[in-house]
Amino acid sequence: MPRISSKGIAMPSSPIRKLVPYAENAKKNSIKVYHLNIGQPDIKTPDVALEAIKNNAVEVLAYSRSEGSDEYRTKLAAYYNSNNIAVTKDDIIVSTGGSEALLFAMGTIADYGDEIIIPEPFYANYNGFSTASGVKVVPVNSSIENGFALPDIADFEKLITPKTKAILICNPGNPTGYLYSKQEIEKLAEIVKKHDLFLIADEVYREFVYDDGIEHHSVLNNFGLDDYAIIIDSVSKRYSMCGARVGCMVSKNKEVIATAMKFAQARLSPPTYAQIASEAALDTPQSYFDNVIAEYKERRDTLISELSKIDGVLVSKPKGAFYCVVQLPIEDADDFAQWMLEKFNDQEETIMVAPASGFYSTPGQGKNQIRIAYVLKKEDLIRSVEILKIALEKYRSQ
Amino acid sequence: MPRISSKGIAMPSSPIRKLVPYAENAKKNSIKVYHLNIGQPDIKTPDVALEAIKNNAVEVLAYSRSEGSDEYRTKLAAYYNSNNIAVTKDDIIVSTGGSEALLFAMGTIADYGDEIIIPEPFYANYNGFSTASGVKVVPVNSSIENGFALPDIADFEKLITPKTKAILICNPGNPTGYLYSKQEIEKLAEIVKKHDLFLIADEVYREFVYDDGIEHHSVLNNFGLDDYAIIIDSVSKRYSMCGARVGCMVSKNKEVIATAMKFAQARLSPPTYAQIASEAALDTPQSYFDNVIAEYKERRDTLISELSKIDGVLVSKPKGAFYCVVQLPIEDADDFAQWMLEKFNDQEETIMVAPASGFYSTPGQGKNQIRIAYVLKKEDLIRSVEILKIALEKYRSQ
Ligand SMILES: Cc1ncc(COP(=O)(O)O)c(C=O)c1O
Ligand SMILES: Cc1ncc(COP(=O)(O)O)c(C=O)c1O
Repeated sequence: MPRISSKGIAMPSSPIRKLVPYAENAKKNSIKVYHLNIGQPDIKTPDVALEAIKNNAVEVLAYSRSEGSDEYRTKLAAYYNSNNIAVTKDDIIVSTGGSEALLFAMGTIADYGDEIIIPEPFYANYNGFSTASGVKVVPVNSSIENGFALPDIADFEKLITPKTKAILICNPGNPTGYLYSKQEIEKLAEIVKKHDLFLIADEVYREFVYDDGIEHHSVLNNFGLDDYAIIIDSVSKRYSMCGARVGCMVSKNKEVIATAMKFAQARLSPPTYAQIASEAALDTPQSYFDNVIAEYKERRDTLISELSKIDGVLVSKPKGAFYCVVQLPIEDADDFAQWMLEKFNDQEETIMVAPASGFYSTPGQGKNQIRIAYVLKKEDLIRSVEILKIALEKYRSQ
Repeated sequence: MPRISSKGIAMPSSPIRKLVPYAENAKKNSIKVYHLNIGQPDIKTPDVALEAIKNNAVEVLAYSRSEGSDEYRTKLAAYYNSNNIAVTKDDIIVSTGGSEALLFAMGTIADYGDEIIIPEPFYANYNGFSTASGVKVVPVNSSIENGFALPDIADFEKLITPKTKAILICNPGNPTGYLYSKQEIEKLAEIVKKHDLFLIADEVYREFVYDDGIEHHSVLNNFGLDDYAIIIDSVSKRYSMCGARVGCMVSKNKEVIATAMKFAQARLSPPTYAQIASEAALDTPQSYFDNVIAEYKERRDTLISELSKIDGVLVSKPKGAFYCVVQLPIEDADDFAQWMLEKFNDQEETIMVAPASGFYSTPGQGKNQIRIAYVLKKEDLIRSVEILKIALEKYRSQ
C-alpha cells in the first residue's frame, strides 16, 4: 500500500475537531450545546447580496478572470480608498476566501524551509497553510497578562534568521481580539524595512472595532510600506458571508501581484456566483454595519462583564473581531472542554469552547486557556457563562 | 525591497497568457477573434442548477462542512455508483474545483522533492500545482504519431525512482482527447501495485466520450485499486458550470481521505452557493447530456474532417473531452499563434489557439503543435479551420 506524505502527517487537525464527536453525542442525548467554538456569525447576510444572487442572469456559469472580475475589483478598490488604502484594481487579486489569499501570499514569498514570524496565539489555520506550503512558523509570544500587545522589537529581532521572509499579523486578532495601535504598526514597519521582510496583515476583521476613538490601522495606510505590505482580506465576516468563499490579496508590490497571479491562474478562477454576491455586498448600507457593530459590542461587553465575575478567570478585553482568550483556573483546557461535552450538563445544557492550545505553536502554551467566539445573542452568552461557571466549580471539585 | 520566492519565479504562467494582449489588440482593431484556445464551453448550464440558485433560501451564507455538505456527498455517491464506482459519501471530499482536488491530492501523497510521473502532453496546470506543492513532474512521452496511446510499461519503469510517489493520468485527456482502454488501465494498475505508487486519475471529462461501443474506464471501476486510486473530478465541464468552482477528490483509501481532510479543514469550506447548484445539477435529465454529447461529437467530426483537408497537418482524432492536438507544417507554433493575432487577418477575422509547448514539460517538445478546443458551434469551427488554412499558407510563404 502506498504511503501518504510526511507533509500530510504533519498537517494539523482543527483544534476543535476531536471535540466534535462529543458534541454530537451530547446532542443525541438531548443536551443543548451552546457553540462558542466557531467563527461562524449568526448575523444575517445583507439583503443586497442575497437579492443579487436570486436575481442573477447567468446562463452559462463561466470561469471569471483568474484575478477576479474587473467590475468587482474596481468596486473593491473604491472600498479600500474609502478606508485610506490607496490602491487600484491592479493591486488586487480576488481569492477563494481569505484562506486562499494566505496560500497565495505564502507561495509568493517563501520557499521550502523558509520562516515566517507570527505573534502567538494566532489563527490556527496559519499552521495548516504553512505546512501545506513547506514554510516554518516561528512564533513570538504575546501574553494575556499584558493584553496580547505587540512583543518588543528585540523579541522579533532575536528570531530573525537568513530564512525569515515575513512577519504575519492578524489585526484585529483571532483569537485575541487585539487591535494594533498606530505605534505598533510603525514598530513593525521599522523591523520589516530594516530586515527586508514582507509584512503580511490579515485584516479580515477590519470593521469589527468597538471602542470610541480607537480605529483600525491598516498596513497599507500611510506607513510607507508599499513594497513590503500584503493585505489578506475576506468578505466572510464583514458581510456574514462565510460560505461565499471570496477574499482577496492586496499589495502595491508589482512583483508580488505578478507572482501571485501565476498561482491564481493555475486554479483558473474564484467562484462566480460568490463574486456576484460580493460585488453587491459592497453596496450594503452603513446602517447594516452600525447595527452589527452595536450588536457585537453589546455581546462583547456582556461576555466580558459576566466572565469577570468568575473567580480565578483572566480575560483580556478584546478591542476588535469577535473572539476572546480566557484563562481558566484549571490545568488542561482540552480535558475540560471535552469533559463539559461528555460528562457534564446543567439543566440539559452545556457549552462547546475551543481549547486555546491549538492557537499556539509553542508546545505547552495556552494549556489553561480557551477561545470564546461571541457569535451568539446576548441571552445565550449570559447563559453560556453561567454554564461555564457551574462547570468550573464541578470540574474543580472532582 | 524583500524578494519573492524561487517557487514563485518557477511557477509557470498560463500557456496562452502572453498571447492575451495580442488578442485584445486585434479586437481593438475591429478584428473578430475565434477563441479555440480555452476550455470554457459555450453550452448552457442545466436549468435545474440555475433555478436552484435563483430559488435558494439562504439567509446566513454560512460555511459548509469542510468535506462538503452531507446531502451533496450522498447524492454524489449515488452518481458514482451509477457509473460502477462503488463509493460512499465518506470516500468523497468536495473541493473548490478539480483544481483544488489536485492540490489536496499532491499534498496528501508527496513531499518536497518527490516525483509524479505524467504522460505528456498533459493539462498545463499540473505544472503549476506541482510547483506550488514542491513536487517534481517527471514526463513520460506519448506521441501524436501513435495517437497518444499509453507509453509502454518499460517507459514508466525507467523513470521510477525511490522519490516517485504517483502516476497521474488525465482520462479522457486534455489536451489530447485520448481515452484509455481497459487494457491500458490494467497496465497502469500493474505498475502502481508493483511499485507501491498512487494512481491519480483526472476524470473531469468522464461523460465526454463520442464513439459507439467505446466507454470510459474509471480507475475506481473494478481494477482492484482501492488502496491506490485517487479520482479528481469536477462539475465544471460536465454541467458547463466552470464558474461554480466545485469538484471533488474520491478515494477508497481511508488514510488518503483522512489526510486530505486536514488540507480541506485548513481552508474551511467549499463554496456554499455553488454546492447548491451542483447538488441540483445531479438531477439534470439524461436528454441534456444526450444533446451535449451529440453536439460535441458533431463538432469533433467537423473539426477533424476540415483539418484533415489541410496539407501537412497531422491530427489525432480525439475519442473524448473537447480538445485536440494538431501538428502544423511550421517550426514554431508560439510564433505562429502570435502572428495570427498580431499580423494576420482574413476578412477582419482571425483565430486564437493554444501553442502546445505549454502542455509538455520536456523542453522542445510540441513546438510545432497547437491545441484546439472545440467549444464553438459548427459553423464557427468550419470558418476557424478555413482561417487556419489561409494563415498557414500566408505564414509559410513569408
Ligand atoms: C483571522 C482569520 N483569517 C482568515 C480566515 C479565513 O476566512 P475565509 O477563508 O472564510 O475568508 C479566518 C476565518 O475564520 C480568520 O479568522
Ligand atoms: C484536465 C483538467 N483537469 C482539471 C481541470 C480543472 O478544472 P476545475 O478546477 O474548473 O474543476 C481542468 C480545467 O480545464 C482540466 O482540463
